[in-house]
Amino acid sequence: MSEQKPLRVAIIGAGTVGSQVISLMNSQADDLKMRIGAPLELIGVGVKDLTKDRPGIAKDLLTDDISALLDKKPDVVIELMGSIEPARKFILQAINNGSSVISANKALLAKDGATLHKAAEKADVDLYYEASVAGAIPLLRPLRESLVGDDVVKILGIVNGTTNYILTKMDELGESFDSALKSAQDLGYAETDPTADVMGHDAASKAAILAQLAFHTRVTIDDVYCEGITSITQQDVKAAQQMGFVIKLLAVAEKVKENAIVVRVHPAMIPVAHPLASVREAFNAVFVQAKAAGSLMFYGQGAGGAPTASAVLGDLVAVGRNRVSQKRGPGESVYADAEILPIASALTSYYLNLEVADQPGVLAEISAAFATQGVSIQTVRQETRGKVASLIIRTHQAKESYLASVLSDLKNLSAVKQINGVMRVEGDEPS
Amino acid sequence: MSEQKPLRVAIIGAGTVGSQVISLMNSQADDLKMRIGAPLELIGVGVKDLTKDRPGIAKDLLTDDISALLDKKPDVVIELMGSIEPARKFILQAINNGSSVISANKALLAKDGATLHKAAEKADVDLYYEASVAGAIPLLRPLRESLVGDDVVKILGIVNGTTNYILTKMDELGESFDSALKSAQDLGYAETDPTADVMGHDAASKAAILAQLAFHTRVTIDDVYCEGITSITQQDVKAAQQMGFVIKLLAVAEKVKENAIVVRVHPAMIPVAHPLASVREAFNAVFVQAKAAGSLMFYGQGAGGAPTASAVLGDLVAVGRNRVSQKRGPGESVYADAEILPIASALTSYYLNLEVADQPGVLAEISAAFATQGVSIQTVRQETRGKVASLIIRTHQAKESYLASVLSDLKNLSAVKQINGVMRVEGDEPS
Repeated sequence: MSEQKPLRVAIIGAGTVGSQVISLMNSQADDLKMRIGAPLELIGVGVKDLTKDRPGIAKDLLTDDISALLDKKPDVVIELMGSIEPARKFILQAINNGSSVISANKALLAKDGATLHKAAEKADVDLYYEASVAGAIPLLRPLRESLVGDDVVKILGIVNGTTNYILTKMDELGESFDSALKSAQDLGYAETDPTADVMGHDAASKAAILAQLAFHTRVTIDDVYCEGITSITQQDVKAAQQMGFVIKLLAVAEKVKENAIVVRVHPAMIPVAHPLASVREAFNAVFVQAKAAGSLMFYGQGAGGAPTASAVLGDLVAVGRNRVSQKRGPGESVYADAEILPIASALTSYYLNLEVADQPGVLAEISAAFATQGVSIQTVRQETRGKVASLIIRTHQAKESYLASVLSDLKNLSAVKQINGVMRVEGDEPS
Repeated sequence: MSEQKPLRVAIIGAGTVGSQVISLMNSQADDLKMRIGAPLELIGVGVKDLTKDRPGIAKDLLTDDISALLDKKPDVVIELMGSIEPARKFILQAINNGSSVISANKALLAKDGATLHKAAEKADVDLYYEASVAGAIPLLRPLRESLVGDDVVKILGIVNGTTNYILTKMDELGESFDSALKSAQDLGYAETDPTADVMGHDAASKAAILAQLAFHTRVTIDDVYCEGITSITQQDVKAAQQMGFVIKLLAVAEKVKENAIVVRVHPAMIPVAHPLASVREAFNAVFVQAKAAGSLMFYGQGAGGAPTASAVLGDLVAVGRNRVSQKRGPGESVYADAEILPIASALTSYYLNLEVADQPGVLAEISAAFATQGVSIQTVRQETRGKVASLIIRTHQAKESYLASVLSDLKNLSAVKQINGVMRVEGDEPS
C-alpha cells in the first residue's frame, strides 16, 4: 500500500469518552491505519477548561479556542461535548468547513438532527453517530444498512442503563426505588441529578433516533411520549413477578398502520421468557421485529467510556475509509414522511390491579366496562380479603385510547374502591 | 430526486431464498427505490431446471443459460445456488464482467473466499455476503464496519439452527439424539442427509467467515477444528443440567496470543446464566467480546427463506447505493496475517465425569495427574456407589494440549475405571 497522507482528526470534549477515544487511537494506531488505509493524526482537543488535569492527553494538543481548532479544517471532527449548545454551533462550523463529523450527542440529534443532516448533505460530508444510542452495541448501522431492505414493524428497547440497573435491583433485591437509585448513584451508574434518566428523557432521545432510522421518517424528541420510572413501587414489582413478568423501562417505536407510527417511552411489564427480560443491571438491548427478518436482538454495554469509545472508533474507521476513497456513507433517509401519532393510537395491553367490593355482580359490571370500549380481557385473577377483593386483570392488545376510556369508566364505578396499579404490558403477543 | 436509470439485477438460484428475494423485491419496490436512489429491475433468474414450477416468478425471466444471463452485465448478481461449483465459476464470470455480487454461499466463501475477494478488488466491484452467516442477523456488517475500530478478543456463536434445535429438544424434553434429529427432520429443520449440520461442517464454514472478519486475517474452513454433536448422550445432558450448564454446539474464534488465533467448532457446556444459554430451538446468536466494547450479543433467526432474504435485500440496498454513487463498500481486510494455531493451543476448560475406585488415595492420585500438567481444578464432586465412586471434575481454563495430556494420563491410572464424559466448558470465566 502506498503511504497515504494522514487523516487529521480533532476531538471536541475530553471527558470519559474523549480520553478513551484518544487512548485507543494511540494503542491501536497501527491497526487503525491498516483498516482505514491511512494513518490518523490527532491535531487538537478542544476543551472548556484548560486548567483541568487531563492525563494521557499531550498538553500542546489542548485548546479552549474550539472555533480556531475547527478552522484548521480537520478531515474528521469528533464531538463529545454533549448538550445542545455550543455543540450544535461547533458541529455546523465543522460541517461547513468540509470536515466529516462523528457525534455521540443523542440530545442534539434527537432535538435537531435535521439541521445537522441537511448541512452534511449540502457540504457532502459524513455525519455518523453510532455512539449516541446504546453505547458499544452496533445498532444504528444495522438499522441504517443491514435491515434497510426489510420492513421494520416494531422496536422494543432497553436503552437506558441507569433505569435498568434500578429496576433490576428493585426486582432482584426487593429494594425501593429510592434505595435502588441511591445504590446506582454510589456506583456511578446514576448522576447526582438523575432526572434525565429516571424521567425517561434520555431514553426518549434514543427512541427518536432509532425510530427515525427504522421507519425512514423524521422523528424528534418532541414526538416521543415519555413516562419515567419514579412512581414504580415494590407492589408493582411483586405483582409483575406473580404473573411471570418483569418491569423494564422500554423505548417503543412501532408502525400502527400504513405510514403511521407511535414512539413512546414508559415502564412496561414483559414476560420473563422474553429475550429482553434477562437484560440485567446496566446492560442495554434492543429487540427489533421486521417483516422478513422476524425477531432480532442486539445486546451489550450501553454506556461507559470504553464501550462508547468503541462505537466512536468504528465510525472513525468508516469515515476515514470514506475520506481515503473520497466518498460518503449513506445519508439521512426520511423519504417516508410518516405520520407520527400520539400515544392514544398505540397498540398495547394493560395490567390492572383493582380493589373492588366483594359482592355479587361486581365482576359482571367491571367486565362490561371493558366490553363497552371493545377491549378484550385476557386473564382475571380474584383474591378475596374480607369485604374487598383484589382483582388482577390483563387485557388483550387494544388501542391505548380505548384502554384509557376503560380506566376512566372504572374510576366511576362505585364497586371499584381503588386502582392500585396500572401498567402497560409488552412482548406478550405476536404482532 | 431526478429519475435514476434502473439497476439491473440478475438472480442465480431460485430456491426458497431466491423466491423470497423476488417476492420482497416486488412488494417493497417503492421503498427499495427510495432507499437506493434508483429503481431495481430484475432482468433474469438463472436456474438449473427450467421445467420446475416456480410460482411468483414470471416465466420469461427464467433461463437455464446462466452464462448468457451474466453476459448481459447486470449491475448486481445475486448468487443463491449454494455449493462450490458451478457457483464459483459464475460468480467469477459476473465479477469479471463488472457486476457487483451478493452471495449467501457460506461453503464457497469459507473454502475459497480469497479468490472471489481478489477478483472483486481487481474489477472494483462489491462482494457482499451478509446472508451467509446467521441468516437475518446483522453480523458481518457490524464486525466489518462497527467493531472495526476495536480489538475483538473472542467470538462464541450458535450459528447452526438444526443442531441447536436438536440440543434444545435433548435438554428440554429428555429426547435422545436420534429422536430429536427425527423431529427436526419432520419439521424441516434438518435435511434428509443431516451430515453437514450434525457433524459441524456448516458451523465450521460460518466460523471461518466470522473469524476472518473479526481478526482481519484470512481463514478458510480447512483452518477450523471441527467436532459434531452425534455422540452427545442424555447422560451428558443430565450431567450438564446438574451443574447448572446447558450443551450447545459452539463456533469459537479467539485470539490466544498476539496475532495468533484458534478457530474451532465443537459441543460445549455453557452456564445457564450466559446469554447464549437461552437461545432455543432454531434461533442463532453470536456473542462477541471486544477489548473496548466488552460483551455484545446478536440474536435472531439464522435460517429460513424470509430471514435470509432480508439479509440479501440489505446487501442489495447497500450495493445499489454504491452503484448509484459509483463507489464501493469496504473490501476484504486481511492485513493482520495472523498465525492460525491448532486446537491444542486453544484456551478452554474441561468437564470430566470419571468412574473411579472408591478407596483411599484415589483423589490424591487423580489430582496429581492434573497438577503435573499444570491444570488447575475448579470443582470436584464425588458420589459413592458401592465399590466405585463417580467423580465430576471441572477444571479452570488451560491450554487444550495440557488438558489432553491430563486425559491421557488419567486413562493410564488403575484407579480410573472408566471415563464417562469429557466436554469443553465455555463462557464461565472472564477472558
